[in-house]
Amino acid sequence: TLAAPAIAQESPQVTWRLTSSFPKSLDIIYGAATDIAASVNEASDGKFRIDSYAAGEIVPALQAADAVAAGTVEMAHTCSYYYVGKDPTFALGTAIPFGLNARLTNSWFTVGGGNDLLNEFLSGHGLYALPAGNTGAQMGGWFRKEIKTIDDLKGLKMRIAGLTGQVMSKLGVTPQQIAGGDVYAALEKGTIDATEFVGPYDDQKLGFVKVAKFYYYPAWWEGGPTVHAFFNLNKFNGLPKAYQRMLKDACANANMNMLAKYDAHNAKALKQLVAEGAVLKPFSQDILDASYKAAQDTYAEISAKNPAFKKIFDSQQAFKRDGYLWAQIAEYSYDTFMMIQQRNGKL
Amino acid sequence: TLAAPAIAQESPQVTWRLTSSFPKSLDIIYGAATDIAASVNEASDGKFRIDSYAAGEIVPALQAADAVAAGTVEMAHTCSYYYVGKDPTFALGTAIPFGLNARLTNSWFTVGGGNDLLNEFLSGHGLYALPAGNTGAQMGGWFRKEIKTIDDLKGLKMRIAGLTGQVMSKLGVTPQQIAGGDVYAALEKGTIDATEFVGPYDDQKLGFVKVAKFYYYPAWWEGGPTVHAFFNLNKFNGLPKAYQRMLKDACANANMNMLAKYDAHNAKALKQLVAEGAVLKPFSQDILDASYKAAQDTYAEISAKNPAFKKIFDSQQAFKRDGYLWAQIAEYSYDTFMMIQQRNGKL
Repeated sequence: TLAAPAIAQESPQVTWRLTSSFPKSLDIIYGAATDIAASVNEASDGKFRIDSYAAGEIVPALQAADAVAAGTVEMAHTCSYYYVGKDPTFALGTAIPFGLNARLTNSWFTVGGGNDLLNEFLSGHGLYALPAGNTGAQMGGWFRKEIKTIDDLKGLKMRIAGLTGQVMSKLGVTPQQIAGGDVYAALEKGTIDATEFVGPYDDQKLGFVKVAKFYYYPAWWEGGPTVHAFFNLNKFNGLPKAYQRMLKDACANANMNMLAKYDAHNAKALKQLVAEGAVLKPFSQDILDASYKAAQDTYAEISAKNPAFKKIFDSQQAFKRDGYLWAQIAEYSYDTFMMIQQRNGKL
Repeated sequence: TLAAPAIAQESPQVTWRLTSSFPKSLDIIYGAATDIAASVNEASDGKFRIDSYAAGEIVPALQAADAVAAGTVEMAHTCSYYYVGKDPTFALGTAIPFGLNARLTNSWFTVGGGNDLLNEFLSGHGLYALPAGNTGAQMGGWFRKEIKTIDDLKGLKMRIAGLTGQVMSKLGVTPQQIAGGDVYAALEKGTIDATEFVGPYDDQKLGFVKVAKFYYYPAWWEGGPTVHAFFNLNKFNGLPKAYQRMLKDACANANMNMLAKYDAHNAKALKQLVAEGAVLKPFSQDILDASYKAAQDTYAEISAKNPAFKKIFDSQQAFKRDGYLWAQIAEYSYDTFMMIQQRNGKL
């Protein structure tokens, strides 16, 4: 609630509520919300306060955007792609199959105009968004059986949602929508054959390794997914400029911190998972190739009938060509050499 | 100048001067300073103002840290490794040969305790530092002749400074210290055989391609160098907590933005450089292997006599082993597939 118009009082007392789409148990991803709140609270000397609520405390995880648009809460910490049911364009805010990695996502959003395009689209839904977290490339998830060729995907019941589910359907997968709390039991009973989640640090907590030991990589559908802060557009615009700036920089800080935390903690969890029996497997080249083809077909179909999707997708594609050109020169050759040292025990 | 003690006035009028170690012509790297200034100016409603000065306007580029420590200016935007003449430990703030890439650097600094260790060391010099920019893995620089084997490095006069110069000496290179403005002429005349600089976007401006066409990668000595905001320790500690927080988040924002800008602009510059005659070459495996060995020997020598260096170096090494373990699974396999699509013209 804005205590007074900005013009009348430069630093009004403001208290907002934030609804997260995540439970507190996913401490890294949920923690970005409290990081943002801590930043603006400190920068404003306690005048701008944000109270964070976990998924379900105010509204369920996937109703966060609606709650923000309706003004039930002023902001959310959520993933844009949860709302593809409204419009597939929402997927472009988070990640699409074979999209950008985390670094290129940040570059496209901030320098390549990607986040401005997203906000142009979101304004039609009463929303404004700032990137506020990234997990890095995710793992492809847990499979009860080994998946060697594209034929092994046919008839596979996998817990996977949204645009990726649509792409996977073209490969013969039967996408399943199952609430987070029910996934383990479904996998254990064989109601589903596979599930994707996030990466080692989060996946370990759910214990999937006990019921589906094949752990595939990479999640070709989440090369660098962004978690956004969603704001009620009018509430954000009504903030004093100083508070808007605090939020922008706080979100930038949270964006980098989330990735930094995953990068610091995933290795240990991965080693523990392997010790617990996880069998690490890369998706085969033919699966990646077929998935890539299915994704391009899906984008062509959506673009043909959805100009909003096409506009943002085309911007990302153009950015991607140059981005992956530069990334493969200095960065990739440096990393490759360092990874060889790591494998050889020379680090 | 602090207008009044923090306790007496919550939001005092503060005006600081920032000396950059960079010229305005290096617009991306210099721009981080003005980004930080713009952030705190807006977040504080104009009460906390930072005036930015380019290298040489107040003090020369490499005297920035001294000027901050002496209180001539309150802060600088500079590279810690410029000050290895005082102590080689300064190198660990920016980049060391075969150190961390940009993403792992951010993770080590923020989650792995790297920046706290750096500040513990810097406090002895009256300084406090926050990461405020990263270039990503740099290019290895411009060579007048092709460098095929380790023997081709023997007797090579290369403009390269600091710790890397020390490592390269072990390979037979004669490191040269030449002021930025004189490098082109030295390369043209053959006074030096090679020079390193940054990456395509910055290198193109200096026109090196006209006098040394072999453009090598990667800079194994700068896998993800950080540019820091250096603060006078007492001045930083004397700021109201709110202003400290504004600076922290502003620096986080600038840190990410610099990398985002390089990632968005390097590809175009690289393509232009190749069109202008640059011959792109990766350093050979034997050069990388010999350089790696020379770097490890150098670290052992320094660590044996410098406990401050050893403490921070050991922290980074431990972090690196796990960091590059995780990086090679999901992220590397995703990027590899995307780069193959890029090379095949399928993006």
